[in-house]
Amino acid sequence: MQEKKQVKSIPPKADDLSEWYTQVCLRAQLVDYTPVRGCIALRPYGYAIWELIQGELDRRFKATGHSNAYFPLLIPESLLVKEAEHVEGFAPEVAWVTQGGGEVLTERLAIRPTSEAIIGTMYSRWIQSHRDLPVLINQWCNVMRWEKATRPFLRTLEFLWQEGHTVHATEAEAAQEVQRMLEIYREVAEDVLALPVIKGRKSESEKFAGAAATYAIEALMPDGKALQAGTSHEFGQNFSKAYDITFTDVDEKVKHAYTTSWGVSWRIIGGLIMAHGDDRGLILPPAVAPHQVVIVPIVKTGDETVMPVARVVRDEIAQHARVLLDDRDQSPGWKFSEWEMRGVPLRVEIGPRDVAQNSVTVVRRDMPGKTVVALPEIAARVPAILEEIRRAMLERARAWRDAHTIEVTERAAFVEALKRQDGFVLAAWCERPECELDIKGETSAVSRVIAGPAQPGSACAYCGQPAHVKAYFARSY
Amino acid sequence: MQEKKQVKSIPPKADDLSEWYTQVCLRAQLVDYTPVRGCIALRPYGYAIWELIQGELDRRFKATGHSNAYFPLLIPESLLVKEAEHVEGFAPEVAWVTQGGGEVLTERLAIRPTSEAIIGTMYSRWIQSHRDLPVLINQWCNVMRWEKATRPFLRTLEFLWQEGHTVHATEAEAAQEVQRMLEIYREVAEDVLALPVIKGRKSESEKFAGAAATYAIEALMPDGKALQAGTSHEFGQNFSKAYDITFTDVDEKVKHAYTTSWGVSWRIIGGLIMAHGDDRGLILPPAVAPHQVVIVPIVKTGDETVMPVARVVRDEIAQHARVLLDDRDQSPGWKFSEWEMRGVPLRVEIGPRDVAQNSVTVVRRDMPGKTVVALPEIAARVPAILEEIRRAMLERARAWRDAHTIEVTERAAFVEALKRQDGFVLAAWCERPECELDIKGETSAVSRVIAGPAQPGSACAYCGQPAHVKAYFARSY
Repeated sequence: MQEKKQVKSIPPKADDLSEWYTQVCLRAQLVDYTPVRGCIALRPYGYAIWELIQGELDRRFKATGHSNAYFPLLIPESLLVKEAEHVEGFAPEVAWVTQGGGEVLTERLAIRPTSEAIIGTMYSRWIQSHRDLPVLINQWCNVMRWEKATRPFLRTLEFLWQEGHTVHATEAEAAQEVQRMLEIYREVAEDVLALPVIKGRKSESEKFAGAAATYAIEALMPDGKALQAGTSHEFGQNFSKAYDITFTDVDEKVKHAYTTSWGVSWRIIGGLIMAHGDDRGLILPPAVAPHQVVIVPIVKTGDETVMPVARVVRDEIAQHARVLLDDRDQSPGWKFSEWEMRGVPLRVEIGPRDVAQNSVTVVRRDMPGKTVVALPEIAARVPAILEEIRRAMLERARAWRDAHTIEVTERAAFVEALKRQDGFVLAAWCERPECELDIKGETSAVSRVIAGPAQPGSACAYCGQPAHVKAYFARSY
Repeated sequence: MQEKKQVKSIPPKADDLSEWYTQVCLRAQLVDYTPVRGCIALRPYGYAIWELIQGELDRRFKATGHSNAYFPLLIPESLLVKEAEHVEGFAPEVAWVTQGGGEVLTERLAIRPTSEAIIGTMYSRWIQSHRDLPVLINQWCNVMRWEKATRPFLRTLEFLWQEGHTVHATEAEAAQEVQRMLEIYREVAEDVLALPVIKGRKSESEKFAGAAATYAIEALMPDGKALQAGTSHEFGQNFSKAYDITFTDVDEKVKHAYTTSWGVSWRIIGGLIMAHGDDRGLILPPAVAPHQVVIVPIVKTGDETVMPVARVVRDEIAQHARVLLDDRDQSPGWKFSEWEMRGVPLRVEIGPRDVAQNSVTVVRRDMPGKTVVALPEIAARVPAILEEIRRAMLERARAWRDAHTIEVTERAAFVEALKRQDGFVLAAWCERPECELDIKGETSAVSRVIAGPAQPGSACAYCGQPAHVKAYFARSY
């Protein structure tokens, strides 16, 4: 499924990030638009990235004692409305099934926008005693939210995600779970995807509908906007009261349990595309690159020396990394462009001169220049080179993020910085929803996460009222 | 999430297969009913079985050159209706989304009952040249069919499955693909799930809506009914004409491609439950058992010798198999019953006497009796024992199937055998839909698959007209 030859080049990333992003998503063959409004097709190359991200997350979920399960797609309206804030938050975005099997249904069924309602209902049946706790379950599935404007990965009506839903006997255990999963998200974002993130609690206005507290990881995109890349929620007893999740404790008393949920979606792929890509296209972090290494043979007419060597190199590298030998009938230059567009971290070129010198030419996708490596050494060196690429990508992204994060104390500087729309602005803040609304009205920015306590006696950088915390502000996706 | 202690035992399998099946599904904690009509929750233990089946299939799909991708859940009505037979077959079972984002939609959207329509539409965009072929894509997803009567796994409104969709330049290549995938299904059913199946083409009345030819694997259940456990379809050019999937061939002519699809759902779990289980519950084939081995320590009050040994044995077996050390505060007898109900293939008991004798006691789930194995040998012997269990399960199931398959030539014997409802009936058949309808009317049975050619000059066992094939008949799930 190759595309027709690309006649038009993509716009420079710095000139038009939005158009650059769309073109990269399409030309790297990650996704395609479909005739279903706001829904994308995740093509094999994009799906392979998602499978690798799933693998990294799933392994960590299981290592921390979680199991996967599957709950119904459709949620009867009467279940969805049980938690008042939750339904108020999600009802405007719900798609409703009203007909089935040729008949009009007596009750509308929501396509799950998230599964607290149906999972809470099942937990109520499954949990009786403190011996049944904790319940640590995750679900990989599709969900649907009827959005107006949509962008591949970043905002689509249907998306793929995982949603963990856990139940605990005490508030402290639930709080610990929420932080453990948030830390797994940070680790996967930074160590696997080379995507530096800030971690913290959401403000009242920005938290999940029905949550007691929402925590998030947020990455900074090249246009200075923040991207929420994963969330982890403490529900307190809100959902256990709404869905009757009770247990008999060791003291024989029947109590409401404490629940949590946490999720990461394919949106994080949008984050890594924007954070890492350049004017030639995608740059994939090695851990989630479907092909970590591509071998491009440079074969002159009549040459019979290159391909046998290329196959040997392919087989040797395959012991260490995911490698593709591109032996298609296309020019080397065409292949270079194609695999640059598709973000393969490492390219190995083998031509007649390389064969004569018993070497290969190595090109890193994340930096300019070529290196010559002795042929007998290349396979064993690949893992170290891939690790160097990961580290360099993370350091570059972190340096950029730090250079676009400023701390301010005065209102004028705060407003000016937010209006400049150039990254995170850290400031002491009063945490009042009214103040957040005013900031948004004046600057289009909102708080992203609360970073920690402010110095005693601090005043809100915007309104001047007492401030107990520091928060990061930015516009957001 | 343990259930309350089971007070009522399950009915003997031979007395009431249907009630036995439901009880095993619930008590082994594979599934639970939900407040959503006809939809089940797949609990962690059931989902773990599904993950293992997925892994076995997915590995084989990838080894034969297929990639995974993901397409939209919702299919606009105008797309679904493009292939006439297809929509006629599926429309009565469709769930329709008619409202989204607080508004009534201008066009109804079907929740996919299968994805030929949306995938065909995308393939039409992606395929231009013979160089784009073959396209070999699989999708793991949920689908929905609005059924009346439902049973866990066997028939549910929503179910999990995989659907492969491929495109080929020639009819011969498409036919080869259909047989290759059918053979993978046979291999997974028999070699992995120990479920013997017959393979063959479906009759005109039983084929997939819109297919040129449907092939299936069918397993025989203990009540003499056949269970369709996987299907593979040749579409000829039906769907490529309906969805405009064309390519420019090497001769520069634009041609319609040949497409296929093939699918296995979680229904196959229902098949293995019924085929293998006994009066004590589930018996899982080792390859898809979440715990292949359970260690039950038998600890008397004050004893401190057993648990340390049990932990060492657990760690050693873990090098070879999925093992669980059940150290919960319950009696050994309670644990024996629980793990028998949940079908763990191998139980290792370790008590003070075992420790004193430097041995363990080993109990196979699939046969009566205990064996004593020297402690230093147990871990290394586990893989061979699990393989013995698999082979014994397959042989037992195959012997049973063969004992419940008869070949008949006369009408009286044919009708009598089908009315006895005791398994497969093999007979020469005319293949006429009218004849199949008459057979169904008189006996409730239909053809399951066409096994191969009949002897020249054969007559249909039912109607006496010329018969060119032999077919298996049975009632079915």
